Parts: sequence; C-alpha cells; structure tokens
Amino acid sequence: MKRTAKELADAIGATFEGDSTLEISGVAAPERAASRDLIYVDSAKRVERAVASAALCVIAAEGLRLPDKTVLRSAHPKFAFSKAATLLLDRAPIASGIHPTAVVAPLARIAGSASIGPYAVIGEDAHIGAETQIGAHSVIGAGCWIGEHCRIHPRVTLYHHVRIGHRAEIHSGAVIGADGFGYAFGEGRHWKFPQVGIVEIGDDVEIGANTTIDRGSLDDTRISEGVKLDNLVHIGHNCQIGAHTVVAAQVGFSGSCIVGKSVVIGGQAGFGERCELEDGAVIGGQSGVLGGKTIRSGQTVWGTPARLLEKFKEQYAFYGRLPELAARVKSLEGKVGTK
Amino acid sequence: MKRTAKELADAIGATFEGDSTLEISGVAAPERAASRDLIYVDSAKRVERAVASAALCVIAAEGLRLPDKTVLRSAHPKFAFSKAATLLLDRAPIASGIHPTAVVAPLARIAGSASIGPYAVIGEDAHIGAETQIGAHSVIGAGCWIGEHCRIHPRVTLYHHVRIGHRAEIHSGAVIGADGFGYAFGEGRHWKFPQVGIVEIGDDVEIGANTTIDRGSLDDTRISEGVKLDNLVHIGHNCQIGAHTVVAAQVGFSGSCIVGKSVVIGGQAGFGERCELEDGAVIGGQSGVLGGKTIRSGQTVWGTPARLLEKFKEQYAFYGRLPELAARVKSLEGKVGTK
Amino acid sequence: MKRTAKELADAIGATFEGDSTLEISGVAAPERAASRDLIYVDSAKRVERAVASAALCVIAAEGLRLPDKTVLRSAHPKFAFSKAATLLLDRAPIASGIHPTAVVAPLARIAGSASIGPYAVIGEDAHIGAETQIGAHSVIGAGCWIGEHCRIHPRVTLYHHVRIGHRAEIHSGAVIGADGFGYAFGEGRHWKFPQVGIVEIGDDVEIGANTTIDRGSLDDTRISEGVKLDNLVHIGHNCQIGAHTVVAAQVGFSGSCIVGKSVVIGGQAGFGERCELEDGAVIGGQSGVLGGKTIRSGQTVWGTPARLLEKFKEQYAFYGRLPELAARVKSLEGKVGTK
Repeated sequence: MKRTAKELADAIGATFEGDSTLEISGVAAPERAASRDLIYVDSAKRVERAVASAALCVIAAEGLRLPDKTVLRSAHPKFAFSKAATLLLDRAPIASGIHPTAVVAPLARIAGSASIGPYAVIGEDAHIGAETQIGAHSVIGAGCWIGEHCRIHPRVTLYHHVRIGHRAEIHSGAVIGADGFGYAFGEGRHWKFPQVGIVEIGDDVEIGANTTIDRGSLDDTRISEGVKLDNLVHIGHNCQIGAHTVVAAQVGFSGSCIVGKSVVIGGQAGFGERCELEDGAVIGGQSGVLGGKTIRSGQTVWGTPARLLEKFKEQYAFYGRLPELAARVKSLEGKVGTK
Repeated sequence: MKRTAKELADAIGATFEGDSTLEISGVAAPERAASRDLIYVDSAKRVERAVASAALCVIAAEGLRLPDKTVLRSAHPKFAFSKAATLLLDRAPIASGIHPTAVVAPLARIAGSASIGPYAVIGEDAHIGAETQIGAHSVIGAGCWIGEHCRIHPRVTLYHHVRIGHRAEIHSGAVIGADGFGYAFGEGRHWKFPQVGIVEIGDDVEIGANTTIDRGSLDDTRISEGVKLDNLVHIGHNCQIGAHTVVAAQVGFSGSCIVGKSVVIGGQAGFGERCELEDGAVIGGQSGVLGGKTIRSGQTVWGTPARLLEKFKEQYAFYGRLPELAARVKSLEGKVGTK
Repeated sequence: MKRTAKELADAIGATFEGDSTLEISGVAAPERAASRDLIYVDSAKRVERAVASAALCVIAAEGLRLPDKTVLRSAHPKFAFSKAATLLLDRAPIASGIHPTAVVAPLARIAGSASIGPYAVIGEDAHIGAETQIGAHSVIGAGCWIGEHCRIHPRVTLYHHVRIGHRAEIHSGAVIGADGFGYAFGEGRHWKFPQVGIVEIGDDVEIGANTTIDRGSLDDTRISEGVKLDNLVHIGHNCQIGAHTVVAAQVGFSGSCIVGKSVVIGGQAGFGERCELEDGAVIGGQSGVLGGKTIRSGQTVWGTPARLLEKFKEQYAFYGRLPELAARVKSLEGKVGTK
C-alpha cells in the first residue's frame, strides 16, 4: 500500500528530512531499488551504495550524509525499515474465500471472513478465526482452534486438538501435533507411551517450512507468543518454548525441554531431554546441550557439550597449539630424561 | 475403552491391591488426572504427587506406599502403564470409509475394511490391507503394498513399489521411496546412478513426521519390524535397519549403512556410507560415525568421530584441563630452561 | 527402452568385446541381474561376482577378465553405467495428461505436452513448460515459471514467483520459496524483515525430499545448473549455490552464503551467515563453517570450526594422546619438582 515518506516517518518514529509529499510504494536493496522504493543504511561503509541508488527515500542512522535523498533518521534503521515494510507491503494472499473443493466438517466453525484454499480439509469441531487464511491442501484436525489473522500456508498438517493463537504464520510442510517419540520396552517390543497431550501455539508465532512440533505425552507442548522457528526444526513432546525465542534451522529439541524468553539458538543445535535454557541464553550453532543440563540466563554457550563461549575459545586455542605443546614436552624430556 | 482396574491388572500381569470393581477410562499425569484416570509411579521421589492425585488407580513399583489408592504392582511401571494405555485409549481415527474424493486407480486392491481419507491418491496395482487407514492427501504410488491395521497419516508420500508390513504407523509429511542420492560425474555433469531398488518396511514400524527414506539404488532399503524412527530422520539408499532399533530425531544415514537389532541412536547423529552398527550398540546424540566404520555390539559411543563413551569422557576431561597443563609445561620450562 | 549392447557401447564411448546383437533391457547389481540386465565392475576385487552373475553384458574397467561376457570397456565404469542407465530405463511417470481434479488458474499457461496430477493446484500466471510433469497435490504458486522436461513429484510446494529451469527434478515434500528467516527486534517483538526476493533454480538441478529453499529477502536465492541437493537440506535466503555443487542430506545454510562450482558438502554440515565456499572446496560431514568465513578453492575441511583436513587429523591425533601427554608432564614434574 502506498504511503508518503512523511507518513512512514511518523509511523516508525523517525525524524524527517526532505520531501514530505514523496510517495513510497515498496522496499528494496539499494542496487535494485526504483525511485519509489524505500531503502535503509545502517553504517558508514554502506552509505556509498545508498547514495548511488535510484531510491529517493532512505532510512538512515544519525550522522550518515545522504545528499539529495529524503531521509528518515532512526537509531535502529533495520528495525525501522522492517516496521515500515509491514505498512508498505501487501502480503501474498494464501487463499481467498472458501474454495468449493475444501472439505469442511459439518460442525467446524469457520469465521465469515476466513479463507480456505483448494482441497484443504477441516476436521470436526475445528474453529477458524476471522481473517485467517488456510492454504491449499492443508489438513486441520478435529477439534483444532485457530485464532484470527493467521496465515497457514499450503500443505500444513495440524493433528487433532492443536491450538493456535492470533496472527500466527505456519509455512508449508510443517506438521504440528504428531505423536511424541516415547516408548517403553517390554515383552520384546517397544510400546508407545501415551501421547495424549496437545500443542498450544501463541500469538505472533512463525513456524518454518517442514518444521515438526510433537504433541505432549501426558502434558502439553507449548510455544509462547512471538516465538520464531526456522525451517526443519524439531520440537519434541512436552517442550515449553518461552516468548520471543528465536530458533534457527534444523535445531532439535528432545522431550520436556524448558526454554525461557528471548533465547537465541543457532542452526543445528541439539538439546537432550529435560534440559533448561533460561531467559536470554544464547546457544551457538551445532551446539549440544546434554539432557538435564541448565544454561543460565544470559549465558552464551558453544560446542558439544555446550560450555561458556569464552571457555570454548580458550580451550580451542590450546587445542590448536597441542602439537606445539607436545613438542615442548618432548624437548623438556630431552633435557631432564624420561627414566 | 473402559476397563476395570482388575482387568487392567490381569492384562499387564500386575499384582492387584484395592477395589477390583473400579472402572478406569483414561491415562494421565498425576497432576492432571481425574478420578477414573490411570497414573503410574516408578520412584520414591514421585510418590507424593501420585498420592496427591485425584486418580484412584496407580501402577506402582514394589515398595511404594500409596494409601487409599487401588494399586497395580509392577516391576516395570512405565511399560505396564504404556501397555495398559493401549487397552484404554481409542486412537484418533485417520479416515473412515472411502471418501468420495479419493482417487483410486482402477486396478488398486483395497480391502473392504480399509479407510481412505479425502483427496488421497492410490496408484495402479497398489494393495491396501484390512483395517488400514490412509489419511487425507496421502499419495500411494503404483505397485505399493500396505499390510493390515496400518495408520498412514495425512500428507504422506509413498513412491512406487514401496512395501509396508502390518500395524505400521507413518506420520504426516514422511516421504518413503524417493530416489537415493547417487551420481557419477562425467562429461562435465553429474549423471544419476540408477535408483531402481525398493523400500521394505516391516511390521510395527513407526515413522516420524517429515522423515525421508530413500529407495535402494540397485539393492533395496529395509526397515525391519518394530523399528521406531522419530521426526526428520533421513535414511539413505540401501540402508538396512535391524529390528526394534530406535532412532531419534534428525539422525541421518548415508547410503548402504547396516544397522543391527535394538540399536539406540541419539538425535542428530550422522553416519557415513557403509558404516555398520552391530546389535545393541548405543550412539550418542550428534555423534558422527565415519564411512566404513563398525561400532561393535553393545558398545556405547559418542562424539565425532565416534569413540567409546569412556574414552570420550577421559579425553574430554583432559581437554578441559589443557590450559592448566600448558601452564605446568611453562612452569617446567622456567625451571629447566628452553634452550 | 531396450538397446543392443553395441548401441550402448557406442552411446557411452566404450570399446566393445562380444556379442553385438545382444539386447539389454535393464540394469542391476550382479547378484540380482537377469541375463538381459547390464552390470558394471570397476575393481579387481569385484570381478568374481560379475563373472558369477547371470548378466550377459558387463561394463568393465580395462584389464579385468570377464570370460563369456559381452564387455563394454570404459575407463570410468560407474559413469558409463549411469549414462547407459539413462538410455535403458523409463522413468516412472509422475502424471499423465491434465487430471480433471487439477485446479489451474485461468491465466496459467500450461504447455500442451505438460502433465498435471490429481489435485495439483497451479496459481495465476504460472508457466509450465513442455513435457514437464507436476505430481499429485503439488502447489505451484502464482507467477511461477517452470521450464521443460521437469519432474515435480507429488506434494511439492512452490511459493509465488519461483523460477525453475529445464530438466529439474524436485522430490516430494520439498518447499521452495518460503519466507527467509530474518527479523529485526524492536518495541518488544520481532518484526519480519521483508522477504520479497525470489528463488531461481537452474537447469538439471535435483532437489531431495523435504528439502527447503527460502526465497531471498531483498536479493534472490539462486541454485545454479546441475546442483544436486539431497533430502532435508535447508538453504537460507539469498544463498547462491554454484553449478554442479553436491550437497548431502541435512546440510544447512544460513542466509547469504556464497558457494562456488563443484563444491562437495557432506551430510549435516552447517554454514553460518555470509560464509563463502570457493570452487571445488570439499566440506566434511557435520562440519561447521562460521559466519563470514571463506573456504578456499580446492581445500578439504573438517570439524567445527572447519579447518584443513590435515590439520584436523594432526590435532585429533594429539588429542587422542592427551592422557599420555599429561602423564609425561606429571613424570617431568616428579623429576624437576613443582615448587
């Protein structure tokens, strides 16, 4: 949706310098921008490409000189740009109206303003909130509850009784609510431990493509508001993920992990059963936290088993000098003798 | 399905103490249980929550005191509870009857008691056994053979000529029988090595959401009876996975790995081509076994490259003390001199 | 399609020895081959099983004796066998004709010779080239462009405006063009950084089952010609993957990675943001390349953080001898004293 530069400045709380009537219609990288696209620049070394851009309007940090541009000054240009983009960009529609091929169970409750794409299947007693869009081929199990303004992309599966808040976005291929992985061995075979909990997903959660979130066993699995999960993430049964935590691609959680608020987790990290990550912890990519371990609030850890980043770096530095250390020991032995 | 406490005790081989007429209708965690739910307790430290539970009936290990409860004594409470749950719980139906939108090839053979969900597609010559349920949007390729009492959840793909035994359960998003990953380089490009084998899956196998199992190249890929695969697991072409082996989430097998019976594999472990895991081996999470290596029967290994757990622990302990060791070498050099 | 042995020899540039009229109808492993199947042998230790095979025709390296067989001599038997297989094998059809249940948008342009399976959904303005097959339940977004002779298996999602070259093959469950994982934090929540780029996929690319490739943020994501991606791979926004690069299963790329030509990447390797792999680099399985790092052309690296394989091996050897080294230091201290 078009906005004037001045409207955008007001919306993002930026100081305004330039042509207040300028109309902006999109966002772009400086090299690709057309005159009406908004760009941003957050460091001196990127000023040159912003100046050279065809874009007429730039969000810029204080102190950066951008002659001949309309400038929206912000202390946090990337955030300001992202917020402005939500005003400028129409999101690609996932569905519009109820497609005649959608199979909707008789007792499902679909808000009048919800949309359901071709071949989607909505189970008995499911509830779909206002303005929510369900993509083609998505399967919404019996008893699911989905809030308002959600975007469920094509080919998503929700097993029965999954609960989703408002404004959640779930990408294609995600599977929410499959049985957790729990067995008890006896009489020569594995018996499935009951997986009768549900999955609850909060407001404003985004779930990446082909990510899987298992239902609880006897408890529930909970993903709190504002959590962002990248693609191919695995979340085991009974996990609790705190608000605004960010989880990069291919991370895996075993069962019953407790994750605090605003935790940041790098790609391919793995977590054993019942481990705990306190608020604001930062977990490096490919790190492994053993079952039952706790990472304290605000700690940054790395490696497998995960340890404090400073410790990891110190140990790793010594590791790299091991051949030298061994040579020094040999030299000492030459002087002192080994007998 | 409701059972009396006495019926459950008999079915699981438990000693019975209490009210034999008590009717049980479900399972739960102690904190959540209603009076008619079955709970279990396997250690003294959890007795208190069991006693405080509203549940009237408890499966408990010998020696645990549970006043006022009906108690089913079992040496293995978790197993007994899991087995009892299979009697108590009706599993959520995946499909019922043949949905009119299912596309079933003319020469497919569907047992009269099988069910096929909306929009499922069943290929030519496919065979679906008695009481098997196929979920919405699942695609069963030509020539597939699926046994009795299987549960194929929505949005599963079986490529052509995949064979599935009885009572298998396959979760949403799983892809069985895609081409293996094999190429030969020549004339400036990669040529696909033929992937003309099949996939055979045994009885009582469970396959997690979004897991992929590739078809064989010139041989077949085989998953034996009772194997349990978690979500997002990858099994390459020609792998042979032995009976009752358990594979946690995001594990990856390259081609032609041979895995014995009752192997236990932690999450995110990886296996190079043609490695071999003998019966009862235990592989730690995130471990890496190099191509061509063998892990002996009953060994527990950890790390990349995978080594015996005791060895891993010993080395890791010395690793943690490296800065101290280096300081000691420096101190020695101070005394002895380095020239 | 049947071929004479002589035709195959000519097609693959092999020297011919034997019965030129022999007709070949398939490929197989020696143990499984019927008389008319083609087999291959590339080393002396495998000659015996080739000789014992029922197959009448063998592709063999120079110098291997195969009495009574028709032999096609090639310096690269595996490549020759793979190339011959492309002539002999009819690929399993994915769809034939436009299935009446396919939902094709009015302004989509579908070549007359293209095929679209049951329940596939083709968005507005999409273009499907000649001889391309789209599997059941695949969802092709608005504005997608797919070239000729592509094989899109069942249950694939292309988000809007994805571009696919000719002869590409995309396996079931793959998701191409979902939003990249980028946010800017402000005002207590994560704001989605705009993900308005596209995905471009070159000719002859193969993409594995349940692999995900995210669309660009302000730039585009590009997979060049001849690239082969295994299953469950994740490619973040703005990545550029060079021609003929091979990526094994469960590898993950963060955003904006630059990968050269003919790079080889082992399973479960992970790459931080903006790292760069030059042409011909080889990355070991489970390796981790930190964000912003460069792996030079032709280097082979291993471990996390990734380092040269020789260095990894040297360090690892010293690591294994750490207990011994510590004992030697202790012994030195005994002689020299620690005070």
